[in-house]
Amino acid sequence: MDQLVLHEDPISGNCYKIQLTASLLGLPLVRRPYDIWKGETRTPEFLTNINPFGQIPVLQVGTDSFIPESGAACFFLADGDDQKGRLIPEDRLERTQMLRWMFFEQNQHETSVAVLRSWARFTGLGNLSEEQKGRLTALGRQGERALTCMEAHMQGREWFVGKKISLADVVLFAYTQIAHEGGFEMENYPALNQWIARVKGVEGFVKMDGVD
Amino acid sequence: MDQLVLHEDPISGNCYKIQLTASLLGLPLVRRPYDIWKGETRTPEFLTNINPFGQIPVLQVGTDSFIPESGAACFFLADGDDQKGRLIPEDRLERTQMLRWMFFEQNQHETSVAVLRSWARFTGLGNLSEEQKGRLTALGRQGERALTCMEAHMQGREWFVGKKISLADVVLFAYTQIAHEGGFEMENYPALNQWIARVKGVEGFVKMDGVD
Repeated sequence: MDQLVLHEDPISGNCYKIQLTASLLGLPLVRRPYDIWKGETRTPEFLTNINPFGQIPVLQVGTDSFIPESGAACFFLADGDDQKGRLIPEDRLERTQMLRWMFFEQNQHETSVAVLRSWARFTGLGNLSEEQKGRLTALGRQGERALTCMEAHMQGREWFVGKKISLADVVLFAYTQIAHEGGFEMENYPALNQWIARVKGVEGFVKMDGVD
Repeated sequence: MDQLVLHEDPISGNCYKIQLTASLLGLPLVRRPYDIWKGETRTPEFLTNINPFGQIPVLQVGTDSFIPESGAACFFLADGDDQKGRLIPEDRLERTQMLRWMFFEQNQHETSVAVLRSWARFTGLGNLSEEQKGRLTALGRQGERALTCMEAHMQGREWFVGKKISLADVVLFAYTQIAHEGGFEMENYPALNQWIARVKGVEGFVKMDGVD
């Protein structure tokens, strides 16, 4: 297989999703770190060679293929012929439900839970712009709706889809495990806490840098 | 095949994506309309029988399977054995790039372009909350970045991925064709305008209700 290089910032949960997917699948991954707060993904070299839109993560496959968007990169890794059925269900409806949670994550969960965590932990709540301050309440409500939706779904289930871990669990795990950093009261979500512990126990699990 | 029922609001581009996918694939689809502005997706019947989270679209397959999230529903329709290669590329890297644009659409495009269109056309800019007013500038910038990213990608291309239409084109088309309703100046994006005309010319194309 072509060499896999993850262009990433280790503080980003979106990047960690790809690292975790590779680890669960036993795929070697070269990690190439950038500091987004220092503008290292906006240099002419990065824009020319890696991603003209200046965003990470980007999964590089061999020398010529570059895959932005964490969900797409995770899908690529798990979509290999020798990985069939491991993290992407072989059943058509289960595969669809996996994608359903992956789109939910990018549309409703990451846009609230991850944003508030980034503001609280890295920007600092005291340094927010007026526009950001004006969004705190609505983003908190949106994140709570997303977590409540997940909690309800996980009543009586072990995994988001089917009977074993899939990419749905991987992508939702990344920012849910650190949602408390954004001010979410995680003791309100007991089924999610049990599921978080379950993910951490899977063979091949790897922690996100800086998270216990 | 089981009967397909689309629980939808005809003013929603997210719902239209599924209708367009079914039409391009020649799949019969029963459309079941709800008025979200009248709370018809929050009734006890809807929450119990269709989607406990009160959101549309939901694609119902037969009597027991319900698929929220437009991208997942489109994927389900195109993922049938008898549809192979028609809207989901058979090449692994192309399939990945298709998903890359589908995640981009849900994370960066729909969350700005569709939101501003909804506020301008349905809420009315004079009726926005203070929180919404505070977001207008940032959402406009986010939407312009998304459209600029698409325009750059489409220089010299006919379709977003590979040599023919895929679900990437379908999902990006839905809100891009009506981005002007949200105040975006579409004359700035000539490659996108050509691509919009190209999508409209595909066999099986169907218009969104109320859009020329």
